[in-house]
Amino acid sequence: MDIISQYREQFVTHLKARTQMTEPRNLYEPVHYILGLGGKRLRPILTLMTAEVFGGKAKDAMDAALAIEMFHNFSLVHDDIMDDAPLRRGKTTVHEKWDLNTGILSGDAMLILAYQFFEGYPPETFKKLTTLFSNTAIEVCEGQQYDVDFETRDDVTIPEYLKMIEYKTSVLVAAAMQMGAIIAHASEKDAEAMYEFGRNLGIAFQLQDDYLDAFGDPKTFGKQVGGDIMENKKTFLYLKSLEKSTKEDQESLMHLYSIKPKDAAAKVEAVKSIFKDSGAVEATQTEIEAYTQKAFEVLEQLTIPETNKELLRKFGENLMKRTV
Amino acid sequence: MDIISQYREQFVTHLKARTQMTEPRNLYEPVHYILGLGGKRLRPILTLMTAEVFGGKAKDAMDAALAIEMFHNFSLVHDDIMDDAPLRRGKTTVHEKWDLNTGILSGDAMLILAYQFFEGYPPETFKKLTTLFSNTAIEVCEGQQYDVDFETRDDVTIPEYLKMIEYKTSVLVAAAMQMGAIIAHASEKDAEAMYEFGRNLGIAFQLQDDYLDAFGDPKTFGKQVGGDIMENKKTFLYLKSLEKSTKEDQESLMHLYSIKPKDAAAKVEAVKSIFKDSGAVEATQTEIEAYTQKAFEVLEQLTIPETNKELLRKFGENLMKRTV
Repeated sequence: MDIISQYREQFVTHLKARTQMTEPRNLYEPVHYILGLGGKRLRPILTLMTAEVFGGKAKDAMDAALAIEMFHNFSLVHDDIMDDAPLRRGKTTVHEKWDLNTGILSGDAMLILAYQFFEGYPPETFKKLTTLFSNTAIEVCEGQQYDVDFETRDDVTIPEYLKMIEYKTSVLVAAAMQMGAIIAHASEKDAEAMYEFGRNLGIAFQLQDDYLDAFGDPKTFGKQVGGDIMENKKTFLYLKSLEKSTKEDQESLMHLYSIKPKDAAAKVEAVKSIFKDSGAVEATQTEIEAYTQKAFEVLEQLTIPETNKELLRKFGENLMKRTV
Repeated sequence: MDIISQYREQFVTHLKARTQMTEPRNLYEPVHYILGLGGKRLRPILTLMTAEVFGGKAKDAMDAALAIEMFHNFSLVHDDIMDDAPLRRGKTTVHEKWDLNTGILSGDAMLILAYQFFEGYPPETFKKLTTLFSNTAIEVCEGQQYDVDFETRDDVTIPEYLKMIEYKTSVLVAAAMQMGAIIAHASEKDAEAMYEFGRNLGIAFQLQDDYLDAFGDPKTFGKQVGGDIMENKKTFLYLKSLEKSTKEDQESLMHLYSIKPKDAAAKVEAVKSIFKDSGAVEATQTEIEAYTQKAFEVLEQLTIPETNKELLRKFGENLMKRTV
C-alpha cells in the first residue's frame, strides 16, 4: 500500500473513533452520514503528510486533520443547500435526505465540532491552529459569497475569479498543510512556505477541476462532464474565452451562457468548440502549469531533506495528472 | 445613568468600532444589520459586569462580550430561518430582507467571527475562553435540535423541556458570566460558580419568558402575547397543565393544541383558562422563584466583597421583575 493510502486508512480509523454517535440523533446522524460518504480525504492527508515531512508524527496531526475534514464537510452541507444540489458523491445530500433545517443545524454543529478537535493541543499550538483555522474559514465563506455574487454579474474579471477560487478552495488546502507544519514545530518561515505551497497547488487543482469539468473523461471524472457549462458557470475557461475569442464567438458564447436548453448536448459541444478555438484551453493548461511551478519553487526554500521535498513534489505531480 | 446602561453604551461603542464593513458586502451587510437591530445586550453586559465584580476591567472583557453577542445573533439568524420568522425585534429578518442563502452564509460567517474575537487574549486565556465557547455553542445547537424535535413529539416530559431551555438559552448566559470571571482571573471555583449562577438565572429567565408570552402586558411585552399558544408550543405552562389538570381539561388542551384557527383569540383565552385553573401558572411562578433562589445561593460561596454580590443579586432581581 502506498503512503497516501496508508495515511487515508489511518485517518478514516481515527475519524470513526473520534466521532461517536450521541444525542440528539437528529443533529448528529447527518454529521455521520456526510462524513461517511468518503471522498478523497485529500486535505487531512496533506496535514498528516506535512507533519511527517517536518519530522513530526502523523498521529499528533490527526486531530487537526479531523478539524479540516469536518470543516470541509460542513461547507459541503451548507453549499449543497445554497446550490440546491440533490447529490453529493453520488448520494442524496443532507438537506434532501432530511430537510432544510436539519442541513442548516447539522452544518452549524459541524463547524463547532471542527473547532473542538483542536482542544487536545497545548495552549500555544491551540491558539496558532485555531487562529489559522478561523482566518481560513472566514475566507472560505467570502469565497462562497463571491461565487454566489458572480452568478448574477456579467463583468467578472479573471483576477476576481482567481481570488474567488483561492478563497473558496485553495486556502483550506494551504491551511491543512500549514497546520501539519505547525504541529511538527517547523519554523514559522517553513510553516508559511507550506501554506504558499498549498495555496498555489490548490489554485492549480481548482483550475484543473474547471478543465476536467468540460474536457474530462465521463468514465473517470466523478461529476457530470459539462455540468459547469450547463449551469452557465463562469469558470476560467469561460472568462478566458471571452477575453481571447473573436467578436462573433464572444457573442455566441454570451448567448449560449444565457440559455438552459433541456437537451444540453448541442450547447455543451458548441461552448467547448469556442473554448478550444479561442485558445482558452491552452491558456488554462498554461495557468495550471504556472501555479504548479510556483508551488514547486516554494519547496526550494524549505529546510527539510531533499527526499521529503521529493515526496511533496510527487504528490503535487500526481494531483495534476489526475483524471478524477 | 445606571451601571447597566453604562455597560450597554460602552459595549455598543466597542461593537461599532470592532465591526467595520468589509468586502464582500453581500456577506457582511446582513451581519451589520442584525447587530444593529439592538436588543437588550443582556449577555455581553453580564460578561462586563462579571469581570468587574471579580476586580477585572470591563474593557478587557469587551472582546469576549462581543464574541458572545455575535454568537447570539448568529443563532437568531439561523433560528429565524428554521422558524420561518418574518420579524425580529420588530424588523424584517435577514433571510426575508435578503434571501435564504444570505441568511445561511452570513450566519456561518458570524459564528466564525465570534471565535476571532478571542484572538486578542493570551494563549492560556484564549484556550479557556474558546473551549468554553465551543462547548456552549454545541449545546445551543443541541437545544435548538431538541426544540425542533419536540414540535412533533407528544410525550415531552418536564425534565426534557427544562434541559432543552437550559441548552437553548441558559448555557450562553452562564458562559457569558464565566468568561467575565476567567478574564478577571477569578479562581476556577469562582468562575464555575458564576456559570452556575448564570445557568440558574437563565432557566428562570426563560420560564418567565414562557409566562410573559401568555400573560404579559401586550403594551410592554416585546413579542406578540399568546404567540406560543397560537404556535402550539409545548412550554412549561403547557406541560405542567397536562400534568396537573382534570382529565377533561387535559383533553380540551390537547385538542386546542392540535388546531391553528385563523382567529386565535378564543383559543388563546381557552388555553390560558386551563393554564390558570390547573395550577400551572402558580407552579411556573414557584419554579421561577426556585431557580432564582438557586442562583442566589451560588453567590454565597463566592470570594468577593458583599457589595459585589449585591450588584449581581440586584441584577437578577430586576431581570425577574421585568415585564418586557
